[in-house]
Amino acid sequence: MMVFDLIIIGGGPAGYLAAERAGHEGLNTLLIEKRFLGGVCLNEGCIPSKALLYSAKIYDGAVNGEKYGVTVENALLNHEVVVRRKNKVVKKLVAGIKSKLKMNNVTLVEGAAEILGKSDEGFEVRAGENSYTGLRLLIASGSVPVIPAIPGVKEGIEKGYVLTNREILDLKEVPSSLVIVGGGVIGLEMASYFNSAGSKVTVVEMLDHIAGFTDREISEILMKNYQKKGIEFKLGAKVTEVREDAVIYESEGRAYSLPADKVLMSIGRRAASQGLGLEKIGVITERGSIKTDERCRTNVPEVYAAGDVNGVSMLAHTAYREAEVCINNILGRKDIMRYSAIPSVIYTNPEVACTGENEESAKQKGIDFEASKLSMMYSGRYAAENEGGDGICKVLIDKKHRTVIGVHMIGNYSSEIIYGACLMIESQMRVNDIKELVFPHPTVSEIIREAIFEF
Amino acid sequence: MMVFDLIIIGGGPAGYLAAERAGHEGLNTLLIEKRFLGGVCLNEGCIPSKALLYSAKIYDGAVNGEKYGVTVENALLNHEVVVRRKNKVVKKLVAGIKSKLKMNNVTLVEGAAEILGKSDEGFEVRAGENSYTGLRLLIASGSVPVIPAIPGVKEGIEKGYVLTNREILDLKEVPSSLVIVGGGVIGLEMASYFNSAGSKVTVVEMLDHIAGFTDREISEILMKNYQKKGIEFKLGAKVTEVREDAVIYESEGRAYSLPADKVLMSIGRRAASQGLGLEKIGVITERGSIKTDERCRTNVPEVYAAGDVNGVSMLAHTAYREAEVCINNILGRKDIMRYSAIPSVIYTNPEVACTGENEESAKQKGIDFEASKLSMMYSGRYAAENEGGDGICKVLIDKKHRTVIGVHMIGNYSSEIIYGACLMIESQMRVNDIKELVFPHPTVSEIIREAIFEF
Repeated sequence: MMVFDLIIIGGGPAGYLAAERAGHEGLNTLLIEKRFLGGVCLNEGCIPSKALLYSAKIYDGAVNGEKYGVTVENALLNHEVVVRRKNKVVKKLVAGIKSKLKMNNVTLVEGAAEILGKSDEGFEVRAGENSYTGLRLLIASGSVPVIPAIPGVKEGIEKGYVLTNREILDLKEVPSSLVIVGGGVIGLEMASYFNSAGSKVTVVEMLDHIAGFTDREISEILMKNYQKKGIEFKLGAKVTEVREDAVIYESEGRAYSLPADKVLMSIGRRAASQGLGLEKIGVITERGSIKTDERCRTNVPEVYAAGDVNGVSMLAHTAYREAEVCINNILGRKDIMRYSAIPSVIYTNPEVACTGENEESAKQKGIDFEASKLSMMYSGRYAAENEGGDGICKVLIDKKHRTVIGVHMIGNYSSEIIYGACLMIESQMRVNDIKELVFPHPTVSEIIREAIFEF
Repeated sequence: MMVFDLIIIGGGPAGYLAAERAGHEGLNTLLIEKRFLGGVCLNEGCIPSKALLYSAKIYDGAVNGEKYGVTVENALLNHEVVVRRKNKVVKKLVAGIKSKLKMNNVTLVEGAAEILGKSDEGFEVRAGENSYTGLRLLIASGSVPVIPAIPGVKEGIEKGYVLTNREILDLKEVPSSLVIVGGGVIGLEMASYFNSAGSKVTVVEMLDHIAGFTDREISEILMKNYQKKGIEFKLGAKVTEVREDAVIYESEGRAYSLPADKVLMSIGRRAASQGLGLEKIGVITERGSIKTDERCRTNVPEVYAAGDVNGVSMLAHTAYREAEVCINNILGRKDIMRYSAIPSVIYTNPEVACTGENEESAKQKGIDFEASKLSMMYSGRYAAENEGGDGICKVLIDKKHRTVIGVHMIGNYSSEIIYGACLMIESQMRVNDIKELVFPHPTVSEIIREAIFEF
């Protein structure tokens, strides 16, 4: 009987990257994926949404080009073509992963994995009709959308007028009206696309602000930008019922009805830990998330978990790094997971990107910090490309050590700029070190240097 | 008589930033600018070209949107509106500099500066009708375009059909045919814009490749992209005469004629050190460039030079940093100029951005290096946004120390990504440190992490 060095459950970012790295290091690795290789991120999340948003950006650019000297007539965003292209991009990237796995000698099995138990040979896992044995397990089963117990939601999903991130990306037609329940990253990105595509979009959010933990000033700027484009926001609003053609919500004690051709439920995601047989080997979960330590180990020796299933950060890039930490520890290389500089990005137009502490979190942690804030208009490139732009950049430093602890930006290219800020935080760069760096001129990235010079 | 702590000659990036920093630190500072505050960069270079290129990008996006599901009719790039907007952007940024100078108590004088000599009180400088005395001098007089002694060029400039970077940015009409002599950064950016704007563009370059010192493979990819868009390139071609309606060039011993409505001369720039009276105080120049040490000091005590006039790097961001080095040294803070991680960017579409050593320069220096190269298509975002894209990313490491020594990219967003690579080189980050960093997914910036994982 063949015994794998490692069995990985789940072929999303954590799972496929772990498999690649493990295979590359010579571990005999089995990867089990029940739905689509690449996981939610590649098939129903990050990547497809970026394909859609890029089409929207080109369309918006064309339609609003007059101030830049560009005029067009009869601009059309053909949703069907956009979705077809999105599918092509996804297919190509999935094929890329497949070939990388093959190159690294990973065995790939399609099917739902179920842990059967542990024998002297190792962990036994069933996938489809077959079962497999592995010396180690890595659970990377990801997450699923939270579906709230609101009257009408379950029925709406069955009938097809209530959608999750999965279904909305494959809509054949642009809904005339779209109500988005939950103003987090997924909700906002879809609001952005469907607004460009011609839907009447309303975002209903329970909190008094959108974009979750994002710096409050930045989330306000983002909302203002979207209101200008015609998206409506209902804050402090609780959905109480979903009907075939309307969403009923309550706000300050009063009930309202919003016409809704389609409804997107995007109130959050939860770890997908059920049905895996974790209990058979005694893996501890907390509110559904697998408990892990800084080395991404579960409570059971030789059982690791990475990605959304641990419930910590629920971002693809966190999953990548957790996967690497797992493999390094399996290989006996000391490596621990640090969460102090994980970036978070909203790919709306304008883009939002943040990393490290924000003013609220720094206060809560009792860090003695100083913040500087600059309008992006201080960047010549931003000024050249953003007529009437209201982007900002905030930098937080630790007052005592004079190190950067947080960077928060709203304005285009932020998504591509933020990794450098993560690098500053992770390598504990001091203000004076950064002042000596040469940033290319003219770029939007210079705004970080400018903000640093305020200290 | 009022004696300034510092007199700065030239209000471009080096001069105005030095003035701001000096004023901020309490130095009584005089800034003399003979033409436009902001210098070539802001008025006739980096910034105006970015305004033009952004309009072209929107236009190109609209016209070539079909593969992304976007179609338009009668797309029009209105050059006049583009130039008008460009002027507005420049005006606003110049006003921003003016107000910063005022905030930092800098005295601003308009006029051509001429050093008269040195007395017991300090250096004497005349500007217009007045003369001023300063304890220290900072020469930041910038550079001017090289005008070759080719028959017809001088006459063409007088008559207006031969242009430099200055005139081309203010052209009232798009020339039907534009011949660009010199395929460096300025030439390529203008080729890019005027190609989009409708000119028949031909680039004539003496070398066998475009884009100067850029990684050779990258410059080839760039050329291919531009050939696809309809720009023609004549490599290894020497211009022998410019006529009112044609450019004559020689290639492999044969003479050719190119029809040319307008001709852009962009073969390089040289230090603007003449007419300043440098000889009055004995400042040494070499082939027209002021000789400086790593602290940006000239051979004359208390006389500094920064920016293009020292002939070292001739980039605005280098000028900024040199200006800061000057001011720090004036203030008695030890600070030296390092040129090992100066980024260089070409804002064409696709963008090119490089920093540190390339394969050629590393070989020449005898560095024991290793290079990795990846197609940008490994980045999910790049794949989602670049149908048929052929971008690449190259990373060079020092084999012995396992530190990053060079990063070279072609593909959009490179301009905004490269600063992080400069940061890696400057802080001598090792391959293993970078592997532990979390890059946001999906971004193009991830390609650097991917390339690092090849080591």
